[in-house]
Amino acid sequence: MLNFLQFALYSWLKIDLSQPRFSHLDRGLIDQLLQLSEQLGQVAMAPISHVLDRQAPQIIDGKVQTPAVLKDALAALAQSGVFATSAPLAEGGTALPYVIHTAVAAILNRFDAPIYGYVLLTQGAANLIRTFGSASQKARYLPDMVTGKYFGTMCLSEPHAGSSVGDARTKAALLADGRYAITGSKMWISGAEHELSDNIVHMVLARVEGAVAGTKGLSLFIVPRYLDGADNHVRLIGLNHKMGYRGTVNGALNFGDGGVCVGELLGSTNGTSAGQGMAQMFQMMNEARIAVGVGAAAIGWRGYELALAYAKNRAQGRKLGNADPTTPQIPIIEHMDVRRMLLQARAQSEGALALCLYAANLSDQAHSGDVNAAKLLSLLTPMVKSWPAKYALEANDLAIQVLGGAGYTQDYLLEKLYRDNRLNPIHEGTHGIQALDLLARKVIADDGAALVLLLTRIAVTAQAAAKIPAIAQFAPGALEFGTQLAQAALKLGAQLKAGQTQSALANAGVFLDALGTVVVCWLSLDQVIAAQESPDLAKVFANCRYLHGYELNKVHAAVAVLNAPEILSGDCGF
Amino acid sequence: MLNFLQFALYSWLKIDLSQPRFSHLDRGLIDQLLQLSEQLGQVAMAPISHVLDRQAPQIIDGKVQTPAVLKDALAALAQSGVFATSAPLAEGGTALPYVIHTAVAAILNRFDAPIYGYVLLTQGAANLIRTFGSASQKARYLPDMVTGKYFGTMCLSEPHAGSSVGDARTKAALLADGRYAITGSKMWISGAEHELSDNIVHMVLARVEGAVAGTKGLSLFIVPRYLDGADNHVRLIGLNHKMGYRGTVNGALNFGDGGVCVGELLGSTNGTSAGQGMAQMFQMMNEARIAVGVGAAAIGWRGYELALAYAKNRAQGRKLGNADPTTPQIPIIEHMDVRRMLLQARAQSEGALALCLYAANLSDQAHSGDVNAAKLLSLLTPMVKSWPAKYALEANDLAIQVLGGAGYTQDYLLEKLYRDNRLNPIHEGTHGIQALDLLARKVIADDGAALVLLLTRIAVTAQAAAKIPAIAQFAPGALEFGTQLAQAALKLGAQLKAGQTQSALANAGVFLDALGTVVVCWLSLDQVIAAQESPDLAKVFANCRYLHGYELNKVHAAVAVLNAPEILSGDCGF
Repeated sequence: MLNFLQFALYSWLKIDLSQPRFSHLDRGLIDQLLQLSEQLGQVAMAPISHVLDRQAPQIIDGKVQTPAVLKDALAALAQSGVFATSAPLAEGGTALPYVIHTAVAAILNRFDAPIYGYVLLTQGAANLIRTFGSASQKARYLPDMVTGKYFGTMCLSEPHAGSSVGDARTKAALLADGRYAITGSKMWISGAEHELSDNIVHMVLARVEGAVAGTKGLSLFIVPRYLDGADNHVRLIGLNHKMGYRGTVNGALNFGDGGVCVGELLGSTNGTSAGQGMAQMFQMMNEARIAVGVGAAAIGWRGYELALAYAKNRAQGRKLGNADPTTPQIPIIEHMDVRRMLLQARAQSEGALALCLYAANLSDQAHSGDVNAAKLLSLLTPMVKSWPAKYALEANDLAIQVLGGAGYTQDYLLEKLYRDNRLNPIHEGTHGIQALDLLARKVIADDGAALVLLLTRIAVTAQAAAKIPAIAQFAPGALEFGTQLAQAALKLGAQLKAGQTQSALANAGVFLDALGTVVVCWLSLDQVIAAQESPDLAKVFANCRYLHGYELNKVHAAVAVLNAPEILSGDCGF
Repeated sequence: MLNFLQFALYSWLKIDLSQPRFSHLDRGLIDQLLQLSEQLGQVAMAPISHVLDRQAPQIIDGKVQTPAVLKDALAALAQSGVFATSAPLAEGGTALPYVIHTAVAAILNRFDAPIYGYVLLTQGAANLIRTFGSASQKARYLPDMVTGKYFGTMCLSEPHAGSSVGDARTKAALLADGRYAITGSKMWISGAEHELSDNIVHMVLARVEGAVAGTKGLSLFIVPRYLDGADNHVRLIGLNHKMGYRGTVNGALNFGDGGVCVGELLGSTNGTSAGQGMAQMFQMMNEARIAVGVGAAAIGWRGYELALAYAKNRAQGRKLGNADPTTPQIPIIEHMDVRRMLLQARAQSEGALALCLYAANLSDQAHSGDVNAAKLLSLLTPMVKSWPAKYALEANDLAIQVLGGAGYTQDYLLEKLYRDNRLNPIHEGTHGIQALDLLARKVIADDGAALVLLLTRIAVTAQAAAKIPAIAQFAPGALEFGTQLAQAALKLGAQLKAGQTQSALANAGVFLDALGTVVVCWLSLDQVIAAQESPDLAKVFANCRYLHGYELNKVHAAVAVLNAPEILSGDCGF
């Protein structure tokens, strides 16, 4: 993965370290950092993946028990500064560009995504406090979150309010000292409760008494597990027993159980930030959505790596056409079907990771004032969350298939990776929620300006590709299909405006997948252009051939579906 | 499922009970049988699915331990005559047409496929003995296999010979009494060893000393766990710990460990059936391949059922366009995206099951002397094995997604069904092996006669559909895409003949999926024609709309791939 990351960062994205805020960095330092991350993952994470999967968290004597090796691994990550990659220098952080932070995250997720989950959530919570918190809130929590002494969570969902966050019932009642008493239940909380850190900083969406219904009435509260060293009455109701991602504790919490649970309104002590909860939380969610994409891509990548190594070693069968059973068996990578599966798995995992890196780089550019980058990032975010979650999972499926029966057993990591990755289309906004965000919000916003911007960038790549004979045949594809999708979106947008909401958005999920494929194909072409001098050219070009030859044509079917909403709106006989 | 089965059997396939061998049956009896199977599954199987999944088989004190409830369930199945559905009346069996047997299998698999696995293997082994065995072999084993007192297995794979069965090294040395001493190891044996039956009848492929290399040197042996009440030296080497299908014991066996392991050559005592092993085993494999399809379809169906029930009850969010958070939440089935997922899951599961029933009916027709039915069945078998395994697994994936986070937990059966169904693209010949069977053998055999036959049948349906206004738009699709695939196959066949084996078969897997989709779409259209007067019309029609609108157009992309083998044959940079 290191090779690809270096190619992507330097040759393809040509990341810009010239900003004053990155003056502490240079390429040598970044390479070292990536190398260290690789070693850290290999030493501290990879060896315990199986253990964490088999010894899921349990409640024993009222405490959440996790394997001892998990605490050790997290301590090693903390010691290496992994919790601080995105924190500013002033806090003792590394202040990495987001794209480098993302590269590090990809490396670590590849070795064990469930372990990295604790880092991810802690960084997200810290970023919220850093961005919106008051000076005293920052002082109280950030130092220990940056060092990994405290962990963080995000508490949005409730048992009756999952995708529909606005229906949250958790309440916040003003106390005499300006803080709030939090009461209610939160569900699906990763890192909800454990003995892995000295404290847990819950970022809790709740409704101040008297606030309006829906998302507009929600405010965000900092609710620590321990307040000034004392129990803050956050109780674990129970653990969720999941198909995968078992290294990450996940459970339901009760706030205000057995005593007053104190929360501070994020950012203000006089209540002015009340009602800002969703807006604030969206910062964390947008980061988390990119992080989900990175995790999914990395899990897919890991499966590919393991399957590739197996396919090079496992001898089975003979070349097609060789009917002589006395000749030696050949490594299965020489079978075309295995080759196809491996190519697909790599093209999808690398394509997914490239998408994430591109988006992360946009985030850095946006941060440096590039308005178009911000616009494009906003459009891409639902795809960054969803495309990897779907297609890198497919890569894991293929990796199992390469091993055959062996891949279906717990002797290899592949079935675990498949189970782990199945989470990613669900959390941080399901596939369906991302699809609505894309089609009903991002695409039609600003009269489709972001989509036009995307098509313009695709056109630039197409023009450059047309000049390189080896890839000229792939030059027009992404632009053509992207344009067809844009035309379909235009029609759907008109239907939306006319109030035909149901039928306009019926196939939002199909649109999400298809536009994601167009984007990944475009970026893949862009990589081939950048790779002309690279030793990785064969790989990058093969990925591009696969994506354009096998996946892009499927967009044709998606366009047909988008133009036929009546399939779903008729009587389905449910 | 009962409704659909009755529609399929009577209105669509119009099964023919007029054959003398079915004179003991009538529709009333069959309906009763289906009803009883449903009850049996509900009472004896469904309640223990979770238990079997969580308490995987273990070796304790040298014996394979399975939960006690498994033995009870199998006893209930045995008592109900489930092991005897395909056995002749003379043996006390029910002598069902294969299509009815398949319907029963679908019902039972739906309640727990891993339990039904024992029945499946025992019936397969019994059928082998019934077809090829000597009179004494039949007398010795069949009575106890038909009553479920003895179970059966099929022992093909070895640690170094999975898909490449011809490389099997297990040996058979002639003993003085005409029987053989079997030595060697077999791998991936379902039902390998357990305390669930009085005996286990292993059907073992082995090479008689001096026989030629490859599949032609393999013979089939009956190797009981206990021979005349004494240990026959078949030893369990270890269990496979699988991602799913945990109710079915699976392990590796050593034959001739600690003493002579005696096997009888199937069918002859004078060695004349030596070298017939693969041909004989193919009978069992062909049945097993259809059975895998049925199991996969049924597991997909189960997921659909559970997700549908959940979606009708779970309230979440509001109609798109309703921004008022004070209005009540609606059942999620009213969300278009959920509706789409449910429709897809049903269309794929029902489509898969319809394909299996159609094939099973062909088997009955072939048995009654219909040569075309036999030809078509042979062509369809790889698709019957593979399409359900891939697309009903997709249905399970969608069923999880409908439930969101809940679907990812062990609180529901959906994640187990997903794990179970992931086995089906692997065993009884992987997806890749089926693809070679289809493209390199079945399609090109007899100058493509079977494919022409298939297209002719599709054309008949298209003609009938064109006359029904509601479906006229779907009439030409399957025929058009089927023809495109046939044209691609023609070219590939010519390449094969020219010795360009690798590139001709590079995308056999893509061809398999695509032709499977064409067949399922055709059958779906055929069902709509048959359902014109049925109360199920809305359902059947919605499935057809989904399959034609969403899936069939993807064949376009497959055709493009088949015409571009250079994507894979270039340097992939592995």
